Amino acid sequence: MKWLSLFLLAFLPSLAVAQEDPLPSWNEGPAKQSIIDFVTKVTTEGSEDFVPQYDRIAVFDNDGTLWCEAPVPLQVNYVLSELKRRAPNEPELANNEMVQAALNGDFAKLLAGKHHDGLMEILALTHSGMTTDEYDQNVRNWIKTFKDKRFGYNLPGMTYQPMQELLKYLRANGFQTFIVSGGGADFMRVFSHRVYGIPPNQVVGSNALTKFEMVNGKPTLTKTMDQVFVDDKTGKPVGIWQFIGRKPIACFGNSDGDQAMLEYTTIGNKYPSFGLLVHHTDSEREYAYDKKPPSSGTLITALEAAPKYGWTVVSMKDDWKTVFVGDK
Amino acid sequence: MKWLSLFLLAFLPSLAVAQEDPLPSWNEGPAKQSIIDFVTKVTTEGSEDFVPQYDRIAVFDNDGTLWCEAPVPLQVNYVLSELKRRAPNEPELANNEMVQAALNGDFAKLLAGKHHDGLMEILALTHSGMTTDEYDQNVRNWIKTFKDKRFGYNLPGMTYQPMQELLKYLRANGFQTFIVSGGGADFMRVFSHRVYGIPPNQVVGSNALTKFEMVNGKPTLTKTMDQVFVDDKTGKPVGIWQFIGRKPIACFGNSDGDQAMLEYTTIGNKYPSFGLLVHHTDSEREYAYDKKPPSSGTLITALEAAPKYGWTVVSMKDDWKTVFVGDK
Ligand SMILES: [Ca+2]
Ligand SMILES: [Ca+2]
Repeated sequence: MKWLSLFLLAFLPSLAVAQEDPLPSWNEGPAKQSIIDFVTKVTTEGSEDFVPQYDRIAVFDNDGTLWCEAPVPLQVNYVLSELKRRAPNEPELANNEMVQAALNGDFAKLLAGKHHDGLMEILALTHSGMTTDEYDQNVRNWIKTFKDKRFGYNLPGMTYQPMQELLKYLRANGFQTFIVSGGGADFMRVFSHRVYGIPPNQVVGSNALTKFEMVNGKPTLTKTMDQVFVDDKTGKPVGIWQFIGRKPIACFGNSDGDQAMLEYTTIGNKYPSFGLLVHHTDSEREYAYDKKPPSSGTLITALEAAPKYGWTVVSMKDDWKTVFVGDK
Repeated sequence: MKWLSLFLLAFLPSLAVAQEDPLPSWNEGPAKQSIIDFVTKVTTEGSEDFVPQYDRIAVFDNDGTLWCEAPVPLQVNYVLSELKRRAPNEPELANNEMVQAALNGDFAKLLAGKHHDGLMEILALTHSGMTTDEYDQNVRNWIKTFKDKRFGYNLPGMTYQPMQELLKYLRANGFQTFIVSGGGADFMRVFSHRVYGIPPNQVVGSNALTKFEMVNGKPTLTKTMDQVFVDDKTGKPVGIWQFIGRKPIACFGNSDGDQAMLEYTTIGNKYPSFGLLVHHTDSEREYAYDKKPPSSGTLITALEAAPKYGWTVVSMKDDWKTVFVGDK
């Protein structure tokens, strides 16, 4: 019987891998099935839908797609935390009208005007004027103290368990995963590899130029607000072209801000393509919103366009067994 | 004796790999040795110089470092070829003063003024106003017809054999290789993977934004000259931060335009780092220049700084057994 044992030992591991559910936090249903069907067909050699590994590019929105964006995006939380930390030691900052509005919770004032000048001002104050090293350290310090008020989770805990499984499933099938988000590139890059397994050079986000100088013989990059690029709406396919330089075959989002990159990915693609929208339908385990989100994440036109272009719509309430990674 | 054969069979392949020269087109000498010493120490586990694979980022200038930039960079050749191709069918283009200067070989006129307005104008005419698909096709068509006047090589043939070996050697040792060039990102990305094994998302170059529109129901990106970014001199570390988001540990260049990224890479790095300059010293097999290059590639201050910062200086004439990939 020895040969039989050896035979079984040799084959069991691969059988076990083949049968293991790659998406255990997804309920069985059309959404989960559409993902598995797509990945299976583009990775089946000899199939007419086969896509070479080199071209398996998948792009993910972050806020509301990979992690929670309510009641405000986590980067806004960082901004407020930084103003609070710095104001006692920086009188000029403390006396700034918009900083005072932010510290008093007067969001109406920050969002007033077509270009949200107040919000832009506090973003600039917390995202420029320091070196890239200082900014990196500030974000790391904030991450250590962060705890979500409603759920009590730390920062990695606020990411969605089903989407973490999806990222891993795609990478295990030869996909390269990119973030394409309206959030700050420098902000996300501090934790993207640790939290999502996505290295900084695969994070596309809103950004501005740095300035290079030798300071006391040391090369230094200082963050500025020059050539601000907002990686949202039509900016998303523009950012994809600028940073990735190829059309993706899979695109994951949750709002009208992702519609342009969903269109770019799924219309006129020479390869089979896949689009997906996360619909926030779970007020108990997370939040329920589309037309009127707590802050960011308006979802109207992209939801209307979904059936026309064959985009999968995920109902968080029905399709996800678990929502958050939580504190593990 | 059967067990001995099996033993040998099991070990021979790895012995063969270990003994094969990874840089056969490099002559033995301090330049080649410095490369091998660096790669060996940062990849030796347990050594205090060990660098985790994740952080093994290497950046390469293109013109004059990976391929020939004389008598003019190959992208200038593309510009002239495009103007010649389009002028007969586009009267407005044909009547443009700077286009006429270009077609008449009046480079003095194109380069006049502090900002080289003439050159910028013909660059804009050939690098914006078309869709990304059209641009891609134009560059592909040009590549098919390209033949270097002096050497008779096609485009891949104009790359340097020793640098191709270096790219492969670094990747075989867990490095990620990036191009960081003053050349156009969209231009280089058309051939970077085929010619260098470097995918578009690892090509940092001069760039400008595209514009996204739905044209007859089809998502379209049109090249513009908005937010032009020149990836040269201090722009190189700025581009590295914007696109790669981490400090490299190895940097390869050939001119003063690479000095800032060499400084950024090798000064104050938490890891062991490596800098290298290709010095064009071979008028017979390629070109000999530094202070007064045929067009781009001035090398004065970076060459002076090399000993101070321990950058390897490669003499093309002495250190390279072969120069060009040539027509294989
Ligand atoms: Ca979103
Ligand atoms: Ca160069």
